[in-house]
Amino acid sequence: MPHMMTIPRKPRIVGVMGSHGEEPAALEQARLLGAAIARRGHVLLTGGGTGLMRAASEGAHGAGGLVIGILPNDRLRPMEGYPNEFVDIAIYTGMYEGRNVINAKTPHCLIALAGGAGTLSEIALAFRAGTPVIGLNAPETPPAGPGKIVRVAKVEEALAVMDEILGGGI
Amino acid sequence: MPHMMTIPRKPRIVGVMGSHGEEPAALEQARLLGAAIARRGHVLLTGGGTGLMRAASEGAHGAGGLVIGILPNDRLRPMEGYPNEFVDIAIYTGMYEGRNVINAKTPHCLIALAGGAGTLSEIALAFRAGTPVIGLNAPETPPAGPGKIVRVAKVEEALAVMDEILGGGI
Amino acid sequence: MPHMMTIPRKPRIVGVMGSHGEEPAALEQARLLGAAIARRGHVLLTGGGTGLMRAASEGAHGAGGLVIGILPNDRLRPMEGYPNEFVDIAIYTGMYEGRNVINAKTPHCLIALAGGAGTLSEIALAFRAGTPVIGLNAPETPPAGPGKIVRVAKVEEALAVMDEILGGGI
Amino acid sequence: MPHMMTIPRKPRIVGVMGSHGEEPAALEQARLLGAAIARRGHVLLTGGGTGLMRAASEGAHGAGGLVIGILPNDRLRPMEGYPNEFVDIAIYTGMYEGRNVINAKTPHCLIALAGGAGTLSEIALAFRAGTPVIGLNAPETPPAGPGKIVRVAKVEEALAVMDEILGGGI
Repeated sequence: MPHMMTIPRKPRIVGVMGSHGEEPAALEQARLLGAAIARRGHVLLTGGGTGLMRAASEGAHGAGGLVIGILPNDRLRPMEGYPNEFVDIAIYTGMYEGRNVINAKTPHCLIALAGGAGTLSEIALAFRAGTPVIGLNAPETPPAGPGKIVRVAKVEEALAVMDEILGGGI
Repeated sequence: MPHMMTIPRKPRIVGVMGSHGEEPAALEQARLLGAAIARRGHVLLTGGGTGLMRAASEGAHGAGGLVIGILPNDRLRPMEGYPNEFVDIAIYTGMYEGRNVINAKTPHCLIALAGGAGTLSEIALAFRAGTPVIGLNAPETPPAGPGKIVRVAKVEEALAVMDEILGGGI
Repeated sequence: MPHMMTIPRKPRIVGVMGSHGEEPAALEQARLLGAAIARRGHVLLTGGGTGLMRAASEGAHGAGGLVIGILPNDRLRPMEGYPNEFVDIAIYTGMYEGRNVINAKTPHCLIALAGGAGTLSEIALAFRAGTPVIGLNAPETPPAGPGKIVRVAKVEEALAVMDEILGGGI
Repeated sequence: MPHMMTIPRKPRIVGVMGSHGEEPAALEQARLLGAAIARRGHVLLTGGGTGLMRAASEGAHGAGGLVIGILPNDRLRPMEGYPNEFVDIAIYTGMYEGRNVINAKTPHCLIALAGGAGTLSEIALAFRAGTPVIGLNAPETPPAGPGKIVRVAKVEEALAVMDEILGGGI
């Protein structure tokens, strides 16, 4: 049954946040992250859209994982590229930037990639919520600032920190 | 592997809304609904709490289904019974009644059970969002009102309407 | 100074909710309500849009009152008629139906006029929040339902109930 | 009539964001800002709470200005110090950090003071919304980042930039 997937009960949720950008190396990083998250049995949560969100979703999808998208829009207000085609479960909020709060609060661990003001807001809101944050080319935040972010340079390092935070895969 | 579950990609999402109440017959209806939803391969979405929400979640869980809870609170603001023990994926909003909008917008079909003002608001917001609503002992709404609700008296009738709305199971 | 207004510190806030409709008698009722609210020194709060919201705002504005609009949209997402030209203070939420929660929670007293699903959701959310509700041709709600709504047929009756709830004007 | 205030129609709204902190020099800055905002006929908008929010509100109140607080909580969920005693109009959201979006979107100009993750999130969300931001000891943001923030060291400089953004007082 190629259209089925098997996931653990009460899976860990890993958020991957980032911009709409289309830089090939960043997209490949996002895909690798998504695939690795899914192979560990974790659920991928993104903002459900294009760019790095879509690339991470594609990676998780290809590895047989469950992909959740927390959408800014709703069915009455279609938005190009939302949800992307790899989202299994679309959570429609219709709250636009208000949904960044949910992106920040829900995951057991959040990986922030390159991004703009939206990604920066999600990092700040994750700090506020106590969600552990891993930064991989993520927007800068105050060095002596309010939140803890573990900054890494490579996908493998991000995964190693994630595994430590989540206590390993299944 | 008893702790794994198998679900279809891009599953249909069925919302079951209702009160915190503890009336045994209503709880049994909620459990039966949850189980039937899961057996069809649909995902159950509730407000993640106690009473009818928990009973529906228990039913879906027992039938091997995926249970999503859209929580009013967040990890910094614990709330007794949220999420209930059958929730697989807890979406933390921290928006309290604000999350009712998400409950109303996200499902492909919403089944409203007995409930109070919260359930009534979810029905009204579903009308507004265009989400099909099935009422099983649900709060009354204006008969010549703004939204369409198919009112039924039995679980089997609710499921028949649901199957018609969703175009059948898998 | 015709462009100044004088209002009391810590004024009472009266919400007037209703549809986008354009029925002349209902518009006149809304205008009369808005004017009477302003003359008592209360602040008018609406959803900031067209129809009955605009008519109530026009009435309050003409009587020298302060008009607050809780907008569904934001500056990046313009919406025809939001805010209407009588809104003094536009609170931009960008949360669309999510802002109905704020409309329901903020006023010291809420007057619901004729309306559809949006107005019904605001009544239900006001019940949930404990905000006193006065209905003047408002959508029906469960008679033995979760909330208290005082239903009246005329503007003067609505004002009499409002005065009682708020303990009179200034 | 000491309990009345006179404000212009359609006033400009200036947001002042900052932490719960109690550092005397920062509190004095906030008070001076609030007073200067009110003297120009602008409305002060804050998160409605303690620390720098309260100090700015006190300043505006003392200068006869209107103070709006966008509260994280609601009447059913009391929160120590929210609203502070200088808030004239309390907008109850019950959305906790979700209300930061409204703080960022609503003002015509936002002044960010010293703060933590909450203030950082409001700056980022203001960048996203296109709201002009002035930083006075505000949390750092990416220097080549997504948003424009004019950083100043003194209250007078903040006011000069604000006046330029808003096109002067009345």
